[in-house]
Amino acid sequence: MTRYALTLEFHGTPFQGLQRQKHGPSVQRSVERAINSVTGEEVTLHAAGRTDSGVHALAMRCHVDIAKDFAPFRLMEAINAKVRPDPIAVIACEAKPDDWHARFSCVRRSYQYRIRNRRAPLTIDLDRAWHIRPDLDHKAMHRAAQTLVGHHDFTTFRSAHCQSESAIKTLDRLDVHRAGEWVIVDTSARSFLHHQVRSMVGCLALVGMGRWSESQIAHALAAADRHELGLNAPPHGLYFVEATYPEEQGPEEQHANQERN
Amino acid sequence: MTRYALTLEFHGTPFQGLQRQKHGPSVQRSVERAINSVTGEEVTLHAAGRTDSGVHALAMRCHVDIAKDFAPFRLMEAINAKVRPDPIAVIACEAKPDDWHARFSCVRRSYQYRIRNRRAPLTIDLDRAWHIRPDLDHKAMHRAAQTLVGHHDFTTFRSAHCQSESAIKTLDRLDVHRAGEWVIVDTSARSFLHHQVRSMVGCLALVGMGRWSESQIAHALAAADRHELGLNAPPHGLYFVEATYPEEQGPEEQHANQERN
Repeated sequence: MTRYALTLEFHGTPFQGLQRQKHGPSVQRSVERAINSVTGEEVTLHAAGRTDSGVHALAMRCHVDIAKDFAPFRLMEAINAKVRPDPIAVIACEAKPDDWHARFSCVRRSYQYRIRNRRAPLTIDLDRAWHIRPDLDHKAMHRAAQTLVGHHDFTTFRSAHCQSESAIKTLDRLDVHRAGEWVIVDTSARSFLHHQVRSMVGCLALVGMGRWSESQIAHALAAADRHELGLNAPPHGLYFVEATYPEEQGPEEQHANQERN
Repeated sequence: MTRYALTLEFHGTPFQGLQRQKHGPSVQRSVERAINSVTGEEVTLHAAGRTDSGVHALAMRCHVDIAKDFAPFRLMEAINAKVRPDPIAVIACEAKPDDWHARFSCVRRSYQYRIRNRRAPLTIDLDRAWHIRPDLDHKAMHRAAQTLVGHHDFTTFRSAHCQSESAIKTLDRLDVHRAGEWVIVDTSARSFLHHQVRSMVGCLALVGMGRWSESQIAHALAAADRHELGLNAPPHGLYFVEATYPEEQGPEEQHANQERN
């Protein structure tokens, strides 16, 4: 039995989400089926994060255990051939120790949220960004975002269906910048609550449109009450961009992780 | 009668091309129908360039004559509302003098060709880039490209269906650079022959893959023979990015244009 780490890129629009569902297509089902037709084995794909219907991934880290022996490059090529025409690609594959776990070993998740800020409807970027018509004040959004960075109770920004034991999380980064018509939100943390990124971005968009004052973000956070949530951003602007593992960090970061644990 | 300049962004995949066809959807037909339902008038859309089926545009310049009086912003908003759900957007609109012509007044066209250079299949960028698996030597491509810049007979790089009177054109720019997995070709000229950009990019890709030597580009050009063409790049990597008009140029560029004419 070998544990293989797979890095997946996928276009989320046709899927009900990453994790297998009773009904409807999922990234997990597609990849497991492709691996089954390559290996003849029933496998379970474990991913660093769960993503909702319509959410995309540039580099979702996963693992799977396979009895048959494969060179990682050949396994990657074979899965890519079988997973077609679903918009999923294995962009990296490597053998890992048996105790390496895509979800439990992961020490940092990073997401990017992409907003296209203009009057005209989207064409080439349809389903790939959140279209917001009113001019966004991205500097106000960035300032307001900084009040969410740190160790907080994120109950306000948590889905009613969130299964996390605690709403207390440490948010390491929440940066907003503009590049032409694009307003980009980059965020990272050890872990996120269900809908946390979309909920934070939704409220920041209200600040950007001038419908919320900057201080309302801090007020909503302090309330620790889901009813204080202003807006949940739609899934199609959200990209899972990176999962980080201890062996990929420098010595200082590893030390900081141990301290925090 | 007012002449309106429209700047269009569109995703080319669902269309047979920009220009109206006897059969099948075209950008021209969609926009003309949208304008008809806004104004009640039968109009003809004139565009700076023709694009083939599957080719995209970030900013195609067009014009149309409308009898009814509209504020340009209102006209733009109304066309965008009516053109849905086709992936076309009017991103700018302004009134122009009657002698301004989107095609005949245009003094420079710019295209970008996007290649995604990696083993794994494309997902989010499907239909939006040319997927090339072998490693491309983008520096060799750029060097070879420079032999095409200047005043030449481009017969080799011209479609059999090209309607241009002469194959002698001046190519102002053909630059190749890499950004991660992306290999980007930027090109501009007063005008291009039918399939010229795709034909040039196809041959440059052969150089990048090492299947053509750099000097074979110069040889193919000198032959002035379509049979010397190595490869025509697919349409879905091609973007029309800019059309330039004399009033938008600085005094030096305007002078250079007059000299060339």
